[in-house]
Amino acid sequence: MTAVTLDLDRLDFKKGNGLVTVVTQDASTGDVLMVAHADREALERTLATGEMYYRSRSRGLWHKGATSGHVQRVVSLSADCDGDAVLARVTKAGPACHTGEETCFGPGRWDALAALDATIARRATQAPAEGEKPSYTRRLLDDRNLRLKKLGEEAAELVTACADGDRERAVQEAADVLYHVLVAVKPLGLTLEDVKAVLARRAR
Amino acid sequence: MTAVTLDLDRLDFKKGNGLVTVVTQDASTGDVLMVAHADREALERTLATGEMYYRSRSRGLWHKGATSGHVQRVVSLSADCDGDAVLARVTKAGPACHTGEETCFGPGRWDALAALDATIARRATQAPAEGEKPSYTRRLLDDRNLRLKKLGEEAAELVTACADGDRERAVQEAADVLYHVLVAVKPLGLTLEDVKAVLARRAR
Repeated sequence: MTAVTLDLDRLDFKKGNGLVTVVTQDASTGDVLMVAHADREALERTLATGEMYYRSRSRGLWHKGATSGHVQRVVSLSADCDGDAVLARVTKAGPACHTGEETCFGPGRWDALAALDATIARRATQAPAEGEKPSYTRRLLDDRNLRLKKLGEEAAELVTACADGDRERAVQEAADVLYHVLVAVKPLGLTLEDVKAVLARRAR
Repeated sequence: MTAVTLDLDRLDFKKGNGLVTVVTQDASTGDVLMVAHADREALERTLATGEMYYRSRSRGLWHKGATSGHVQRVVSLSADCDGDAVLARVTKAGPACHTGEETCFGPGRWDALAALDATIARRATQAPAEGEKPSYTRRLLDDRNLRLKKLGEEAAELVTACADGDRERAVQEAADVLYHVLVAVKPLGLTLEDVKAVLARRAR
């Protein structure tokens, strides 16, 4: 685990009467989860525990998830250019909003590719319940030849749809290829984020 | 273009002395760009023009990009659960921060796959400058058989790397396949967002 750091002396607590604005973002999907506030103490606790603490005028110092269990593990903290706001990227154990919605802004943007990768990862680690019919993903994960054969098949179907100039089939087949790529690399312990990291390095 | 809506009467302007907090997010990469404030007038102008207006205590009513040209086109506006914050998803014409950084929180998360798709889209619409050597992407876009042949080739290379259990080669080949899928569907006018929309519908 990389230690999360944030230089609290760079923050401007004065402007907000001891508080800075905190924007909390899901580190894997990119969804903005909530907007709240923190004082120095809340950020110190966040840094010390690796879980999000906030300060609200009504609730005081507040450990997110202390009662609901929906804690937010900190991935990174960044101050903005004038030091009166902090962006907290987190992984969450449950809905961010007290209403039960995934985010305080509603269902949110929901990156379908990131969500799909998370689903595949869950299937890879959880055995199906007894008597439960294994999902298609589970069957692919259990059978190397099947999952690699399907990858080739779907690529050929995308090629055909593109050669035909068939937009509707092409978008469906492209979705199939992306899904089968993520399944194919999962048994090697690879995630969508690992693949994006390769693309990011190439773009530099 | 879908009209952007937001029920201003649902917002709680009182808590913030006439202001709500606005979190602005890049609609394609998911990057959180900046945190600012808006009053009713700023949001009314935003709704009327489709471009972001803010209100700051020092600058007053403020049309983002009016001087720099880096306007933010609104994709959607959502209020949070208690109505004192608004999430604005935008497409931007340039860096969000006055420092020249892409976001006020620094280089940001930067979704490499979304960025790659945007680069391919740019190559598809802009002719190379005179005397400029065409990029690899440009050559693929200009040659249907080449781009579909490469897609098949890269899929076969990913299959081989996975069959060998070679993690390092697999992540490189997966990146290659993703890139070639995005190139293959680009001449049909398809984007990564279109493919994600298919995955989102399937997940429901």
